[in-house]
Amino acid sequence: MGQGRFISFEGGEGAGKTTQIRRLVAALEERGIETIATREPGGTQGAEEIRALLVRGSADRWSPLTEALLHNAARSDHLDRVIRPALDRAAWVVTDRFADSTRAYQGHALGLGDEAIGTLEGLTVSFTRPDITFILDLPVEEGLARARAREADAQAGEDRYEGLDVTFHEKLRQGFLAIARAEPERCMVVDARDPADAVSEIIWQEVARRFPEVTG
Amino acid sequence: MGQGRFISFEGGEGAGKTTQIRRLVAALEERGIETIATREPGGTQGAEEIRALLVRGSADRWSPLTEALLHNAARSDHLDRVIRPALDRAAWVVTDRFADSTRAYQGHALGLGDEAIGTLEGLTVSFTRPDITFILDLPVEEGLARARAREADAQAGEDRYEGLDVTFHEKLRQGFLAIARAEPERCMVVDARDPADAVSEIIWQEVARRFPEVTG
Repeated sequence: MGQGRFISFEGGEGAGKTTQIRRLVAALEERGIETIATREPGGTQGAEEIRALLVRGSADRWSPLTEALLHNAARSDHLDRVIRPALDRAAWVVTDRFADSTRAYQGHALGLGDEAIGTLEGLTVSFTRPDITFILDLPVEEGLARARAREADAQAGEDRYEGLDVTFHEKLRQGFLAIARAEPERCMVVDARDPADAVSEIIWQEVARRFPEVTG
Repeated sequence: MGQGRFISFEGGEGAGKTTQIRRLVAALEERGIETIATREPGGTQGAEEIRALLVRGSADRWSPLTEALLHNAARSDHLDRVIRPALDRAAWVVTDRFADSTRAYQGHALGLGDEAIGTLEGLTVSFTRPDITFILDLPVEEGLARARAREADAQAGEDRYEGLDVTFHEKLRQGFLAIARAEPERCMVVDARDPADAVSEIIWQEVARRFPEVTG
């Protein structure tokens, strides 16, 4: 029994991560692969409690460093209790956001910088890096319009970042694109303006290319 | 107007920090020095919310790394909103626990190690180090007996560590004593078995020796 595969989905608000994750997980499970769908911040009872401190309240509630520490605390618990145990039993893990979100949000868009983020990532993530990261990319105005149309997050009060201005979201987008340029082997940028079926097909082809065992 | 002074109190359970802090703060205020008495984890609204995740529940609720990240998140908020602004306006800050508690609890007694703790401390504390740290030292059995006799913490459910065994508390004590040996200029170990009045006098003499302006 080998090691499971670890796939993360990243991108700004409204890029369609939830839909694409649901489809990928269904495709993997159809092929008899045990797959855990999870999310950050969150994914464990403790990390969801930390999430509640992060996603609600005013945008300036925490400094970028405090926020990065909280995200890493939640991630550490998620890795300990869900991600690493799953990979160790050869299950696949598909997560809605992982360490790249901390790089893009706190490191890039909020200005904490790559060095502090990298130091924390070294402690928390260590060697448990995603095998593939799909970055669902969308022009900022379009992503925000989609996020506003979707009522669920706002109803849950999880809107700390959606209230920030277009400049913030543009920095966020550029942060994700810079990660993809720096790690082209791991990251694939997918144009999220394409129809959902086309996006799913691109994602599945990449998974099959990287892990031929899924079509075997 | 100069920079304020920063004093931390450290030590295991039942060492009498609360009493000694109250007396030191009163002595400073009698001399017209604005003094902020605060505590960790906590000291701000956000940090008290993080504290609630740390001090309740079972001892194995978080891994030592997750716990250290949460303590640093709380500390970062405390530094941003209370400690640094107070020192900048020349107020003194007296805190019940600071970074040495993370070194002793998570680093030493829970085994995370000095390197990870030092990395986090470099990010969070940076140059805002205490001018003096009083380590109130007590044999473990005596400290635990005192903590048990004091009902307040147990009633508040803040007993995550008190349930741990004597071996844990002995490592904790040795962790604090090792910090004092490594930084004798900053740290003073005070025998907390002495009567409270004698302890207060030792503390006051050290403050007056280090900062003669308080008796001027």
